[in-house]
Amino acid sequence: MIDPGVASGLRDLTPSVCIPRERMLGKFREVFGRFGFVPIETPHIERLEVLIGKGAGSEEVLRQIFDVTNKGGREGKLGLRFDLTVPFARFAARHVDALGLPFKRYAIGSVFRGERPAKGRFREFTQCDFDTIGTESAVADAEAAQVIHEALTAAGAPEFTIALNNRKVLDGLLDGLGALDRRAAVLRSLDKLAKAGAEKVREELTRAGSEGEPAALDAGSADRVLDFAARGRGTPEGIAEVVAEFGLESHPRAAEGLRNLREVFDLLNAGGVPSSAVRIDLSLARGLDYYTGVVFETTVNGWEQFGSVSSGGRYDNLAELFTSRRLPGVGASIGLDRLLALMEEAGRLDSGPSTGAPVLVTWFPGTSATVPAGLAARLRRAGIGAEVYPDAIPVGKQLGFGSSRGHALGVVAGPDEVSGGTFNLRDLATRSEERGIPMADLESRVASALAARGVVEGER
Amino acid sequence: MIDPGVASGLRDLTPSVCIPRERMLGKFREVFGRFGFVPIETPHIERLEVLIGKGAGSEEVLRQIFDVTNKGGREGKLGLRFDLTVPFARFAARHVDALGLPFKRYAIGSVFRGERPAKGRFREFTQCDFDTIGTESAVADAEAAQVIHEALTAAGAPEFTIALNNRKVLDGLLDGLGALDRRAAVLRSLDKLAKAGAEKVREELTRAGSEGEPAALDAGSADRVLDFAARGRGTPEGIAEVVAEFGLESHPRAAEGLRNLREVFDLLNAGGVPSSAVRIDLSLARGLDYYTGVVFETTVNGWEQFGSVSSGGRYDNLAELFTSRRLPGVGASIGLDRLLALMEEAGRLDSGPSTGAPVLVTWFPGTSATVPAGLAARLRRAGIGAEVYPDAIPVGKQLGFGSSRGHALGVVAGPDEVSGGTFNLRDLATRSEERGIPMADLESRVASALAARGVVEGER
Repeated sequence: MIDPGVASGLRDLTPSVCIPRERMLGKFREVFGRFGFVPIETPHIERLEVLIGKGAGSEEVLRQIFDVTNKGGREGKLGLRFDLTVPFARFAARHVDALGLPFKRYAIGSVFRGERPAKGRFREFTQCDFDTIGTESAVADAEAAQVIHEALTAAGAPEFTIALNNRKVLDGLLDGLGALDRRAAVLRSLDKLAKAGAEKVREELTRAGSEGEPAALDAGSADRVLDFAARGRGTPEGIAEVVAEFGLESHPRAAEGLRNLREVFDLLNAGGVPSSAVRIDLSLARGLDYYTGVVFETTVNGWEQFGSVSSGGRYDNLAELFTSRRLPGVGASIGLDRLLALMEEAGRLDSGPSTGAPVLVTWFPGTSATVPAGLAARLRRAGIGAEVYPDAIPVGKQLGFGSSRGHALGVVAGPDEVSGGTFNLRDLATRSEERGIPMADLESRVASALAARGVVEGER
Repeated sequence: MIDPGVASGLRDLTPSVCIPRERMLGKFREVFGRFGFVPIETPHIERLEVLIGKGAGSEEVLRQIFDVTNKGGREGKLGLRFDLTVPFARFAARHVDALGLPFKRYAIGSVFRGERPAKGRFREFTQCDFDTIGTESAVADAEAAQVIHEALTAAGAPEFTIALNNRKVLDGLLDGLGALDRRAAVLRSLDKLAKAGAEKVREELTRAGSEGEPAALDAGSADRVLDFAARGRGTPEGIAEVVAEFGLESHPRAAEGLRNLREVFDLLNAGGVPSSAVRIDLSLARGLDYYTGVVFETTVNGWEQFGSVSSGGRYDNLAELFTSRRLPGVGASIGLDRLLALMEEAGRLDSGPSTGAPVLVTWFPGTSATVPAGLAARLRRAGIGAEVYPDAIPVGKQLGFGSSRGHALGVVAGPDEVSGGTFNLRDLATRSEERGIPMADLESRVASALAARGVVEGER
């Protein structure tokens, strides 16, 4: 016998996980679509060269990539995608002339990372990305945050906060401190603020020998950065005061960042996103180097330790490795698996019906299955999911199976009912049964019984 | 610059391909759900041992597998799945105790084969599989054909025929000819009948030295098999006559097969599948060795050369490599990519709206974007997809963009309209414009204009 397990860090999704997952993905697709984002798909396999890019800062990436080889392969080295952003950059460079700009796409799919498996960390997981490219407009920036808001709301997420920042404000501060050249290191350290605390981050900011390119700020500068980060939370008005206090009003880059934050905030208000769901946070760094403007990070209130369930930001040039055409844009990613895990732990995952067929039609031992098959087909034609128990076991056992699988109703039509032109309708939860319903009323009576039980058709 | 192309045999799916594809997948999910099939997912990566199985007859499989390796990997050899059946067998062995039987699952996902790339043949493609395990009932057999019928109909496929056979009938014939031991070779040859013709198949059936295990029938037996295959098409009554003529009525296995075909046929009738859509075809072999009962193959009428768009059958024991528990079942697979390609060639692929946002809200140069952002949000809250053009370019250009992207309507509210509390509604196809509509009527007027243009909300 071969062991039926999966490889380390991978997992099977059983129906109880997969059903709410598919429902959530359906909501995301609907929201993305409503905002005019259109779907694209790229292969799971990419040329390694595409995945690795220029090789700058990619050692970590390289270590995590799953290499792919095929006996007949002559096309050079291949690997599995580790995110949906790199494939989108390649896609955009290849197809932008045909597609035109601005272009808004979404993509949902598996990505693969050879990380050490750990609780809640898998080597294959699903990303839900959306991006608008070909514009530098704050309208697109705000829309990204709005999509996050609508998608999480549609998914039934508990109350959450979208933290907003604009990298340019911090750039202004660092410029004033003469440390703009160490921006990446400062951002990397600041990113740890929530988890590691100010003391630890101060130490890292001032260290000269830390891994990679060190920030190596003097103690005064590090304090100023931390002070700025600590106080820079709230509304645009409050933030404007802090910016003024730090003397950044007249710094062109900082002023530009502040203006953008105000615009995004106003557009979110106009778009009906409640201001309680949005907060400006000048400490928000989002480690990734390539963000150049607005950045987002979304946490569920009271579940901040779970980390961000959706994040993103604006970039200057998506596909510079693949095309000389400059493609600025803004986008974000919703962490489906993390959101599902959080909602499950929070008891907020409404698992809903566990089958798309709320009706089980029983089959009487000793009779032909054509009767229940015909009844089930009538129900399905009326838009009501229905299945026939496949074997003529005792009817009570069929009904027991139905209730264990989450069917709401049982349709029972034994020889007596059939010859009398009637059927019985059983509530599988309460076991109460209504008898002798005229067969002609099958669809209407089943539909109203389902509606009375709150089973919404087509919802799964 | 890095070449933005994909590796050989792979492809990007642009929105014009992806939108009808997603719509079709949505229909399949709905149909699978209505019949009580529930979704599962398995990883794209499996242990190589699982993919290769016992190694019997798997050299072809082995050659096609993409190997996967990761630097940190200690879990043995890995590969990408080449179908969804092997992973389901593993899944069933692992989870059947928790899930219970009968169990009906569907799975939709990418599979990978290192075949030589050719026109219409890709190294990554999508399979849509559904199976019922844990029963030997003809109800499940018929249901599989019924699901194929409903799914293809829901997808808008042109008229098609589901060919049905039961392997046991041919087993009876071969038994009578003393050739049951060469069943696999006969099935492999018969499978080529439609493409290669009777002459070629006769030659192969009688050849002793053909590749693999040869059928090596004598000329009389080969003729009898071919005669049987040629005449065995039609309704259960006609087939029963042919079976009687060949003296197979009293052969227990053949009689069992014939009885099953009749039951399946009757159940399909009871289920409302038109008899014109179903044909019994005793020549239908379906190469795969593991089918043991009913087999299906579906071709679009007039497009038989395109090959089968959905096929499947009954097997005795799904997961014998992984568990000692016997798991009989029946299932089928719908070839999404082939069906889409066929429908496109046949001009039957209704591409539908090319955006989920039928309304473009324009933004007037020199004004704040909060006005269009607010209008678009009102429309979306009313369930109407709407987007704001992200840049304040001339309004005519925004509207031109909208019509090129497939938006149906433009909402135009310049400073004069805003101060007068009205908006203008532009038909982007005809360019006609209705002016001065009260702003309070935004949602209702847009909704009725979309309905008048046949744009169904939520349909994408």
